[in-house]
Order: sequence, then C-alpha cells, then structure tokens
Amino acid sequence: MASQIQQNLVEKNKAYASSFTKSGLALPPAKKYAVVTCMDARIDPSSAYGISLDDAHAIRNAGGSARNALRSLVISEQLLGTNEILLVKHPGCGMLTFKNEDVKGVVEKNLGSEAAAEVKSWDFLPFSDLEEAVREDARYSNESKLIPEYVGISGWVYEVETGKVRTVEDR
Amino acid sequence: MASQIQQNLVEKNKAYASSFTKSGLALPPAKKYAVVTCMDARIDPSSAYGISLDDAHAIRNAGGSARNALRSLVISEQLLGTNEILLVKHPGCGMLTFKNEDVKGVVEKNLGSEAAAEVKSWDFLPFSDLEEAVREDARYSNESKLIPEYVGISGWVYEVETGKVRTVEDR
Repeated sequence: MASQIQQNLVEKNKAYASSFTKSGLALPPAKKYAVVTCMDARIDPSSAYGISLDDAHAIRNAGGSARNALRSLVISEQLLGTNEILLVKHPGCGMLTFKNEDVKGVVEKNLGSEAAAEVKSWDFLPFSDLEEAVREDARYSNESKLIPEYVGISGWVYEVETGKVRTVEDR
Repeated sequence: MASQIQQNLVEKNKAYASSFTKSGLALPPAKKYAVVTCMDARIDPSSAYGISLDDAHAIRNAGGSARNALRSLVISEQLLGTNEILLVKHPGCGMLTFKNEDVKGVVEKNLGSEAAAEVKSWDFLPFSDLEEAVREDARYSNESKLIPEYVGISGWVYEVETGKVRTVEDR
C-alpha cells in the first residue's frame, strides 16, 4: 500500500501535471550553469536562488559538496555545455555538527559491524567552518583538471534563517 | 565583476528574502523522507513532487543515482532521522544518451590526457533502460547494509514532457 509520502507525491503531482505547459524543453540547461547546494530541507533552490525551469543543473548532496558533485559537474560541462558553477552552503548545516568518527560511530551502533566496515575508509565530508568550506570547495573546483579554466566558479552562503544569499568567493 | 548568472542570483534572491517568513525551521526534515532525483534543468522537485519547504531532503545528481547519493542517504537516515526514500528518474535523461567510454573520450579530447587519466577508472553511472535503472537503484538501496530494513524505498518515473509522475517499484 502506498505510504502517506507516496500519496502526497501522487496527489500533488496530479495537480502540477494538470497545469503543466513546459513540454519540448531542450536537454541542456538554457542558461548554461550548474548550482551545487545542500540537500537540506530548508532550501528551495528554484525560489531562493531564482532558477526558472530549464535554466540550470541543480546538484544537491549533504553539505553541497563539490567533491561529491564532481561526476555530475563533468557531465554537466563536458556533455551538456554548462560553463558556470555556483557553490552554495548554509549556516546550520548538519555537516557542521559532526565529525567523521561521529557518523561512523552511529553507523556501527545502529547498523552493526558489517555496515561500519563498509564506511571505515569513507570521508563523509563534514566541515567545521562554513565560509572556509565554501572557499575550500571553490579551490578544489579551480584546481581540478576536470573543470576547465573557462568555467566561472563562485562561492556563496545562503542563510536559512533569513532567506538571504551572500557572496564568499569568485574566480 | 559579477556574471549575469550571479546578478540573477542576487536580484531574484533579494525579492525572495524580502517576503521570507520561514525562520526557525528545525534541521531534520519535518516529513522524514529523502528524494533522490536527477540534476536535470527540466525538473523542479518542489513543485513537481509536492515537496513543501522543510518536508524532505532533496538529493540531486546526474541521473538521480542512488549509488552517488549513498553518503547523503546515510547522513539523512542515521543523523537526521529520515525513514523513507523516493527514487525518481526521467525519460530523456542525459545518462541514457552515452556510455562510459563516450564521456571518457570527450574528457580526453577536451581536457587532455591528465584529466583522462583521472577518470580512467570512474563509473559515470549511465544507463540504457530507464525503468530497469529505477529498479536497479531500488535493488541497490534494498540490499545496502547502510540502509536499514525499516526504510521505505520506492522507485518512480517523472515525465519531463507531461509533468506526470508514475510508480515503478515499491518495497
């Protein structure tokens, strides 16, 4: 039987599809950029970052990590023609609240030793300083041989408490 | 100087922040679920999948890959209390249009041999059959020791041409 979450998806989507008018959009993003931001539930990138349907690739993961996004960024640029990246992290991020050993401890406690062995060598990519983490991701992207020089890279902070974005880093 | 894309972010965000009323939301998603979907520019998960601000983690990457999302899913479940995952892929996905050797060839041609060497062992996670790819990601999630049995997993297809979602797989 469908869960409440699944029912919500089906019902809300029915309403969305009934007034859908955006057929025939091309595969590559019209505005040729990609946003990397956090999976955090308090962020709606379309509204908060002003991304209209078909404008941009939106890559989201825990912490908005550029490292974790690199596979997607290579596809975005090399196959789908994007040439600018916005990196956006936020205060109050879960990734500011734990260290690698903390999450590994929780995995071992909750999921057992086999699960713990699987994540033993993982970097969950937590960070302790928000703006430094934005700058570090911008540096990482700048230095990556997989992101060519012509790609614009900028780093931002989005404040989940105010809805405001501010710039941190720009190449 | 700020690019047009950056100016768009700043201007649209100013309007968004000026009517922002959602301070004080808790870090864990209120509806305790996570969505994994594609970075594709033609998808607005909030509207199309009925995700209100603070409902759910939204994880997005090229193809909506559960494998690429696993780090984020572990954090979502083990640290932030989510217990249901919706996996959503779409027809017309870029990942249906190339093979690993194609993207590696493009990287070598455009970015040179050092870049090619870096991605030599990579799996860019393309797929050739959409529904089978959804089922494969559901299987992968079901079988992962890092996703406990109590987590609900369902697989979906979102049609970018019609705005409609349909179910493929449910555990």
